[in-house]
Amino acid sequence: MADRIGIGILGFGTVGQAVARILLEDAAAMEARTGLRLELRHVVARDLTKPREVTLPDDVLSADPARMFSDCETQIVVELIGGVDRAKELIRAALQAGKDVVTANKALLATAPREIFSAARTAGRCIAFEASVAGCIPIIESVRRGLVANRIDAVHGILNGTCNYILTRMLDDGISYAEVLADAQRLGYAEADPTLDVDGTDSAHKLAILASIAVRQSCELDRVQVEGITNIELNDLAEGRDLGYVCKLLASARRHDDGLELTVAPTFVPREHPLAAVSGPFNAISVYGSAAGHAFFYGRGAGGMPTASAVISDIVDTAIGNARRTFEQLVALPDQTPSAKYRTTGESIARHYLRIGLLDRPGGIGRIAAALGAEGISIATITQHEPPRDSATHVVPVIVTTHPVKRIAIDRAVAAMTTIKGVVGRPVCIPVFTGETDAK
Amino acid sequence: MADRIGIGILGFGTVGQAVARILLEDAAAMEARTGLRLELRHVVARDLTKPREVTLPDDVLSADPARMFSDCETQIVVELIGGVDRAKELIRAALQAGKDVVTANKALLATAPREIFSAARTAGRCIAFEASVAGCIPIIESVRRGLVANRIDAVHGILNGTCNYILTRMLDDGISYAEVLADAQRLGYAEADPTLDVDGTDSAHKLAILASIAVRQSCELDRVQVEGITNIELNDLAEGRDLGYVCKLLASARRHDDGLELTVAPTFVPREHPLAAVSGPFNAISVYGSAAGHAFFYGRGAGGMPTASAVISDIVDTAIGNARRTFEQLVALPDQTPSAKYRTTGESIARHYLRIGLLDRPGGIGRIAAALGAEGISIATITQHEPPRDSATHVVPVIVTTHPVKRIAIDRAVAAMTTIKGVVGRPVCIPVFTGETDAK
Repeated sequence: MADRIGIGILGFGTVGQAVARILLEDAAAMEARTGLRLELRHVVARDLTKPREVTLPDDVLSADPARMFSDCETQIVVELIGGVDRAKELIRAALQAGKDVVTANKALLATAPREIFSAARTAGRCIAFEASVAGCIPIIESVRRGLVANRIDAVHGILNGTCNYILTRMLDDGISYAEVLADAQRLGYAEADPTLDVDGTDSAHKLAILASIAVRQSCELDRVQVEGITNIELNDLAEGRDLGYVCKLLASARRHDDGLELTVAPTFVPREHPLAAVSGPFNAISVYGSAAGHAFFYGRGAGGMPTASAVISDIVDTAIGNARRTFEQLVALPDQTPSAKYRTTGESIARHYLRIGLLDRPGGIGRIAAALGAEGISIATITQHEPPRDSATHVVPVIVTTHPVKRIAIDRAVAAMTTIKGVVGRPVCIPVFTGETDAK
Repeated sequence: MADRIGIGILGFGTVGQAVARILLEDAAAMEARTGLRLELRHVVARDLTKPREVTLPDDVLSADPARMFSDCETQIVVELIGGVDRAKELIRAALQAGKDVVTANKALLATAPREIFSAARTAGRCIAFEASVAGCIPIIESVRRGLVANRIDAVHGILNGTCNYILTRMLDDGISYAEVLADAQRLGYAEADPTLDVDGTDSAHKLAILASIAVRQSCELDRVQVEGITNIELNDLAEGRDLGYVCKLLASARRHDDGLELTVAPTFVPREHPLAAVSGPFNAISVYGSAAGHAFFYGRGAGGMPTASAVISDIVDTAIGNARRTFEQLVALPDQTPSAKYRTTGESIARHYLRIGLLDRPGGIGRIAAALGAEGISIATITQHEPPRDSATHVVPVIVTTHPVKRIAIDRAVAAMTTIKGVVGRPVCIPVFTGETDAK
């Protein structure tokens, strides 16, 4: 006789519908795989009239979470409404009602991790959140449990599918950021308001969660240095390709002797690194561990079914008791670990790519070179192309790549350049990724 | 107060020493991460006098497993001696003595999975074996638990680091199979007797284990169609590169309407697929699931520390009770699942690459084309190069690529070609990999 586990879902959007579909349509297969009868007892949605792809059994759909919380046959509550305040309130109520919680909510876990996790401990319940980072990729469990023997020194992720889709298509199709974005919105790869994706916020949320677990220090969201992809032009991607690089919005956590460094930024990844081959809406994460060396994980980071795949694995893990043991015994979550010690901003050393808009007049290149020289920055390559034939502005892009140099020197040089006569707009700066040494 | 868990290790080779090193040198870090005091109480080795890199505490090393089995403070026995008969006997004895078992032994789990797993169930113990497939990559747990919501339709792995190292270096350095092998042996990437690696047996062992769990059917080792890399020449790799392919020893399990197909064979992987970018001694696995779509995992598949990383994660999982719940509750192991239903051999359809050695005389190409035509095989490309200038044999390689065709037709045509006048030796045949459609 299979164990019967009652499930309630808060939120009935794309992911909620996909979870419900698997629970309903694959019930027999899930029971064969797990010995569990996963019974969908409640779905709570704000709008009960909206047409949806899944037909729920009678009495499952309602607008009232209290019904779910008071049902003693519902053991697991799945929070899929997203956002911070309302989700926090509902998760707290579910925990206080004695439910274990499964959530995909990265915004909440990135902004209030200690509050949420300690609320669960106080209530004697557990929270599983595999789906909050990188969709179907079991990266939370892999880092927390599968790589538990490792001191993890670095994590580098492509954690936002929308940005990766935009950067991939710009170069593949030779079209502008704006054109791809419009198309991505039409195809459902980008939200109507894509701000949190393209400005790097969504990646920063996921990085704060993942890095906290990987380095076993509580990483505050506001210590992530964030830069989005909105200033990247097709020109930059093409120049990068010629230099052997692929531009990715990379979310990185790196442990240095003098502290942790957390960044989200467009980054040139050398073509040979597995992260460079991650195209379109996929996500991927490189992890560097003291015993394992380099490990790499890849899969769909968003979308209904891939995210539901992670949600369901958390439901099963919770139902069989493993999620609770992991939650209670392993020490990895922000409420269990000390606050991260951060490295001073700007200390990281890398090669950099700069694109400087320059009026096509004598002396410009010399002034740029002088600004770099004043900061002790050594130029590796410099290229100035002919202005585009149809250009009315006479602004030509000057492309500079540097030898390895501290970021703070680059930032100072960029600031200085904006005051140079003939420089138009703010130079675009893209660091070049250096993978960790993997000499296991 | 941390829980104290006694550990015994059977076998003190490369992996055994790496596990001991982590348990001894990282004891404080492991306790901070897991709340467990992992105490290495016994190491059993045949030769006690051999110099080793790890210094064990007094009274830990012995040649007598009975001492470990009778120690009631040793809860977990780690089997790292490899091979089948002796390992089986020791694992049985450990289980009967009430120990949980962690093993990296792919040969044993591939040849006697039902016997081993049911012995554990009878004894009321559990077995964890993450380290048996793909070293540090948490692929067993990812497939069994992380992707539990999925019907897995295909698994494709590069599961033998020695073969991948050889194939990578042949092409990178432009040297022969024999030269790379000698070098790999010198560097420790290949065994003194590399037969089980290069003939595909080791990959078949790992595939039988991984496929059984992925498709939840018990896969017999002798139903894997195995071909090694010993017939592959530098020439084939270079021709493949020109065609846009990278040659990998691919271990594949594919679910078809008419049954399962298990193969280990040198395969041309199109350059765009993530498996093509897996170089040197690394392992990787592509998994195609009904909800997740394509997921991909990459890391070091062998070596002391990477394998120890997986062994330690199994020790922790066993110590906190999760391994037992997974072992007892999830239905994925060969003693719990029905025997696989296999597809008839030769039914798989793919493009194929053929290299036929031909005496440089009139009429040869025509006879080859006729042999292919007789089996209804449509030629996509055909190339005959000039014979090498220093060739004394006047044998020239003819390279044929075909349109998609059943393997059985290819095999018949190859058999027919060996009887053709002017064909020297057996033609080499390499199928071209077709990734599953990933349209989530």
